[in-house]
Amino acid sequence: MSDLRPVVALAGGVGGAKLIHGLAMAGIERLSAIVNTGDDFEHLGLHIAPDVDTVLYTLAGIANRQQGWGLEGESWSFMDQLEKVGAPVWFRLGDRDLATHVLRTERLRAGERLTGITRVLSRRLGAPADILPMSDEPVRTMVNTISGEVAFQDYFVRLRCDIEVKGFRFAGIERARPTPEVAAALRQGDLRAIVICPSNPLVSIAPILSLPGMRELVVGSRAPIVAVSPIIGGRAVKGPAAKMMLELGQTPSVIAIAETYAGLVDGLVIDHLDAGAAAEIEGLGIAAHVTGTLMGNDDDRRRLGMECLEFADQLKGAGREP
Amino acid sequence: MSDLRPVVALAGGVGGAKLIHGLAMAGIERLSAIVNTGDDFEHLGLHIAPDVDTVLYTLAGIANRQQGWGLEGESWSFMDQLEKVGAPVWFRLGDRDLATHVLRTERLRAGERLTGITRVLSRRLGAPADILPMSDEPVRTMVNTISGEVAFQDYFVRLRCDIEVKGFRFAGIERARPTPEVAAALRQGDLRAIVICPSNPLVSIAPILSLPGMRELVVGSRAPIVAVSPIIGGRAVKGPAAKMMLELGQTPSVIAIAETYAGLVDGLVIDHLDAGAAAEIEGLGIAAHVTGTLMGNDDDRRRLGMECLEFADQLKGAGREP
Repeated sequence: MSDLRPVVALAGGVGGAKLIHGLAMAGIERLSAIVNTGDDFEHLGLHIAPDVDTVLYTLAGIANRQQGWGLEGESWSFMDQLEKVGAPVWFRLGDRDLATHVLRTERLRAGERLTGITRVLSRRLGAPADILPMSDEPVRTMVNTISGEVAFQDYFVRLRCDIEVKGFRFAGIERARPTPEVAAALRQGDLRAIVICPSNPLVSIAPILSLPGMRELVVGSRAPIVAVSPIIGGRAVKGPAAKMMLELGQTPSVIAIAETYAGLVDGLVIDHLDAGAAAEIEGLGIAAHVTGTLMGNDDDRRRLGMECLEFADQLKGAGREP
Repeated sequence: MSDLRPVVALAGGVGGAKLIHGLAMAGIERLSAIVNTGDDFEHLGLHIAPDVDTVLYTLAGIANRQQGWGLEGESWSFMDQLEKVGAPVWFRLGDRDLATHVLRTERLRAGERLTGITRVLSRRLGAPADILPMSDEPVRTMVNTISGEVAFQDYFVRLRCDIEVKGFRFAGIERARPTPEVAAALRQGDLRAIVICPSNPLVSIAPILSLPGMRELVVGSRAPIVAVSPIIGGRAVKGPAAKMMLELGQTPSVIAIAETYAGLVDGLVIDHLDAGAAAEIEGLGIAAHVTGTLMGNDDDRRRLGMECLEFADQLKGAGREP
């Protein structure tokens, strides 16, 4: 049950990776995942790309499902020794995971593009999609907190999100561009759908859409655009999205998600828990599709992927003119 | 049974590390180990210093004694994953060992000296000696083989020494210098002895002694200089020393070692197996001390360390004038 029309997904980490996996399992052979790199950082001299790696490992079927990040069958000797020599250990780097970071760092230093390195890793690990970093130029999400600005991983991992946020800044974004591969994926004439995955709209999807020229590429596509709400019943499935929205004065809800994506998406997929909000969403000019959006297992992933595409197919007639 | 007079040792990897450990166990509290860095190389973007690490791990009591290199209780997940992503795996980097390389590489890139980084690692791991890289400037041992010149680790690890050598070149040595710490150690007025460890004279000790100014520092010391032969009964205890000597037209023997160090050392420690060569060595103007030089266990290491120092003490009167 494969479909030869291409599909493009926009994603951050865990939730996005699951839906991309679902789209791949739904038989999409020409699947491109445009992945946030605003979470990337240099740590211990290594270039870490958390969202790219989560998508890579999830698609390759080697992600640690219990933990929600990193690799299955991971070992921690490196961290153990690192602690003994007094190096910082707040960011956990598994022994297997290190192979990705060391190889990527070496190749970046040799002048290769993040896109090319990611492609090599994807092929070697057998990921059934084209994993495309949103940009080859560095973009670094900075979190403006009540105690000042901190880098994203400092906020997310070291501070465990335990500080009130006031806003975000995507450092370097004015000099960054969507890669040629990203542009080409979005310009495919037979594109079936653009799927905005259930990732954090503020720190996973916003960096992608804030790249100069990216919004035009997305909106300029003939394909219907559907988003899947990362908020279910007022709460984020995972991560600080709801907490951030509250701190920024928004009510975390599918309505807030619809408002965020209004003018961009043709349809929004929401959970049964939020079925009551469907009419209000449609009032914003966005079609709503109600289904189970929690992806507890592979069947859920595949079914949700399939439903996103069928939903998009229905919206085709209503799509924007190029 | 500690002695407050300082001792300096010159060493390469495994054999040298064992004797330095023995000197430390013999109660030498002010012990400096000047270690070859000609084996250092960049691999996967990491700065690897095999001899420094072998000395560090051995002194810290965490070396893998069976294997002869690396750490005890090591795990290999990194290498396993590296192989899966198609990166070169001919040089084995253990998960724990990586902590050393990653930390060192990061600090070198940040502009720190190899000497400072090594000192931090030594203190953290509890090494009972000052481990001093011979130089902070890069020196790279190149092996001239019948098939052309190759870098030392290519020869030693990738090619497993399985190619005939014609000579050696220490690339960068004309621009390298002994570190201030190395010079200070050798200039200590109350230096009890300089011990040239049973390391490969051609590729472990020669790079140290070939540094501009190093030979003068060693010879200029008032302390007696004793070497321990790495050749026992015509064979190297470990490594390619004997094979290299043969290929260069030398007969691997304690006589060849004595000839190599003639004019530099006051005494040579040789094994019982080579007792018959003592008179010939003394004919070269070098005192000979015959003992068991294999260091199978800690007692052997301590005893040999002690004997080297007692031998040096006897030579004191015969020492060079400053």
